[in-house]
Amino acid sequence: MSKWYIEKGDQGDIVLSTRIRLARNLREEPFPIKLDAQGKNRVNALIRSAVFENDQNDFSFIEMKDLSRRQAVSLAERHLISPEFAAKKEGSALILSKDESVSIMLCEEDHIRLQVMKAGLDLEGAYDIADKLDSMLDARVHFAFDERIGYLTQCPTNLGTAMRASVMLHLPALTRCGQMTRLANTVSKLGLTVRGAYGEGSQPKGDLYQISNQITLGITEETAIANLKSIVLQLVAQERAAAAELMKNPAEEDKIYRALGVLRLARLLSSDEFMELISLVRLGVARGLLDVPMEKINELIVNMQPATLSVMHSEADGPAARDAARAKIVRETL
Amino acid sequence: MSKWYIEKGDQGDIVLSTRIRLARNLREEPFPIKLDAQGKNRVNALIRSAVFENDQNDFSFIEMKDLSRRQAVSLAERHLISPEFAAKKEGSALILSKDESVSIMLCEEDHIRLQVMKAGLDLEGAYDIADKLDSMLDARVHFAFDERIGYLTQCPTNLGTAMRASVMLHLPALTRCGQMTRLANTVSKLGLTVRGAYGEGSQPKGDLYQISNQITLGITEETAIANLKSIVLQLVAQERAAAAELMKNPAEEDKIYRALGVLRLARLLSSDEFMELISLVRLGVARGLLDVPMEKINELIVNMQPATLSVMHSEADGPAARDAARAKIVRETL
Repeated sequence: MSKWYIEKGDQGDIVLSTRIRLARNLREEPFPIKLDAQGKNRVNALIRSAVFENDQNDFSFIEMKDLSRRQAVSLAERHLISPEFAAKKEGSALILSKDESVSIMLCEEDHIRLQVMKAGLDLEGAYDIADKLDSMLDARVHFAFDERIGYLTQCPTNLGTAMRASVMLHLPALTRCGQMTRLANTVSKLGLTVRGAYGEGSQPKGDLYQISNQITLGITEETAIANLKSIVLQLVAQERAAAAELMKNPAEEDKIYRALGVLRLARLLSSDEFMELISLVRLGVARGLLDVPMEKINELIVNMQPATLSVMHSEADGPAARDAARAKIVRETL
Repeated sequence: MSKWYIEKGDQGDIVLSTRIRLARNLREEPFPIKLDAQGKNRVNALIRSAVFENDQNDFSFIEMKDLSRRQAVSLAERHLISPEFAAKKEGSALILSKDESVSIMLCEEDHIRLQVMKAGLDLEGAYDIADKLDSMLDARVHFAFDERIGYLTQCPTNLGTAMRASVMLHLPALTRCGQMTRLANTVSKLGLTVRGAYGEGSQPKGDLYQISNQITLGITEETAIANLKSIVLQLVAQERAAAAELMKNPAEEDKIYRALGVLRLARLLSSDEFMELISLVRLGVARGLLDVPMEKINELIVNMQPATLSVMHSEADGPAARDAARAKIVRETL
C-alpha cells in the first residue's frame, strides 16, 4: 500500500503536508505521568480494543518496547511519533494505519495523541478524518472533558480543543531572500508558530518549515483551522513571488541545475548535503524548471533520513555505508 | 575536415598530444628583429611561394594583421601560434593546414617556426611530417646552417637541431598526490622541462602539463626524441599507478561523478571551473569509470577556452554570455 506522502496535494508546489493532532485523555485514569507500566498497559488495551473493534483503516498495534532504536527513530523522522516518544519502552504503544496517514500514540504525554496526515494543504480533509476517529472513540470510552474549558490535557497549553493543526511548507526562496525571521515574527503575533520541520538550527534543513496553531482555549477547531489556512495561503503566495524574482537571476537557476547534476551522479551523500540539494531541486520542479515528479522528491525527503534509510535498506549500516546507499537510491530515483 | 585533436592517439588515456617545432632562418636575410615590415613581407612571400608550390596539406595563408584580437588569441589557445605572435600585426603571417596539424609561423622570432601536432604520443610520426616539410623547404630556400653548430637561430638556446619536441600530458593523479614538484625537478635534471600547458599559476589548469626537450646543441633529433619518449612513458606509468591508488578512495570516485553531474547540468561555467571539472571527468574516463568518449573530452578542452569559444559561437560575447554558452555546449556534448 502506498504511503500518504507519495501523493501530491493541493498547493503541492509549496505545501508538502498537513497534520491534525488531537490530544485526548480517559476520564477514569490519571495522566500517563502518574501511571506505572501496568497502568499504562491497561489504558492502552482499552483504547486498542475500542479502535480495533470496527477497524476500517487496516491498523496495526505496535508496542514501543518491541522496536529497535533505529525503527523508533525512523517513526519520529517520518513525524509519525514525537521524538520523545521514540525513546519510550514499556507501557508506550502506537496504533498505525497501513498508509501511515493515521497514527495514534498511546500514553505519550496524554493517553491518546491521534494524528492524521494528508498530502498538500488539506486541513479540512485531515480534520474530517480525525473528527470521525474522535467520535468513534468518544462513543466507546469516556474522555476527560469540561463543559467550560473543553478537553482536559496534561499540559495546560493544549487545554480546550486540544487540537494542533500544522502544515509543512517548503520555502526556499523566502529563506534565500532572508525573509523568514521577519515572517516568523509576524506569524507569531497572529497566534501561530513557525519552526523548522527538520533540525533545530538557525536555518532549517531543506528549507522546510512547520507552521501550526498555538491557541486551543476559547476557540473552535473550525476557526483555528480557518486562521491557519489563511496565513498558509499568504505564505504560499509570498514564496511564489519570491521564487519568481529569484529565478530571474541566472546564477540561481544555475545552482538548481547543478544540484540536480550532483544528486544524479554523486556516489556519497550526507543527510545535510542531500537536504540542501533536494531543496534546490524541489524549487526547480516547483517553478517548472526541472521535469522531475514532485512525488519522487517528497518521498526522498521523507525516506532519505538517517534512521529511515537504515531501516529500509539493511546495507546502509554506519554513516559511510549510509551515505553511499543514500547516493545510490537518490540517483536511481532521479 | 575534422581537426587533429579529435582523434585519440597512443597512450591516449594520459597523453593528449605531441608537438614538434622546427626553427629555421633564411641565409640571405637578417633575423626578423632586424627587419622592417617590408623586409618581413619579402621573407614571408618567399616562404609562402615555396610552401604553396607543391601543397599537399590544403594550407591557407593568414596575415596576422587581418585577424581580430579574438581570432589571434584563439590560435594561441589552440597552441597553433605562440602567445607573443598573437599580438603581432604587419609583417607577421601564418600558414595553417586545414586540419590544423601543421602550422608555420612566419617572422616570429625566427623566419620560420614550423610546427606539427599529432594526437596522443607520436613523436616519430610528428617528426616525420616535420622533417618532410623541412626537406621540401630546404630544396627551395637557403637555410642559415653551420656545419659545426647546426641550424642558426636568433636565440642561442635553439642553436643546433633548432627542434623543440613536446608532449602534453594529463596528470591529475600525480597532481593530487602532490608529486608534480618533485617529478618536475627530476625531469629538469635530465635536460627536459615540465610546465603547465595552460595557465602560469602554481597548479596548471586542468592538470595538463607540457614536457619538452631543452637541449638542441650537440645532439641529434633522434636522440632528443628518444630521450623525451622514454621519460614520457615513465610519467605515464607513474600517473596510471597513482590513479589506481587514488581510485581506491570512494571520496575521490565521488568527486569524479559529481564533476560529470555538474558539467551535464550547469547553466554557467567559467573557464577555470570547467578545466577543474573536465580534468576530473577525464580521469574518470581514463580509468574506465565513466563512459564518455575521450575524443569529446579532448575536443572540449581545446574549444572551451575563452577566445576560441567566442570565435566559434558568436553569442558568446562577454564573460557572462560566454559562461552560459560554455555550459550549453558542454552539457550538449556530455
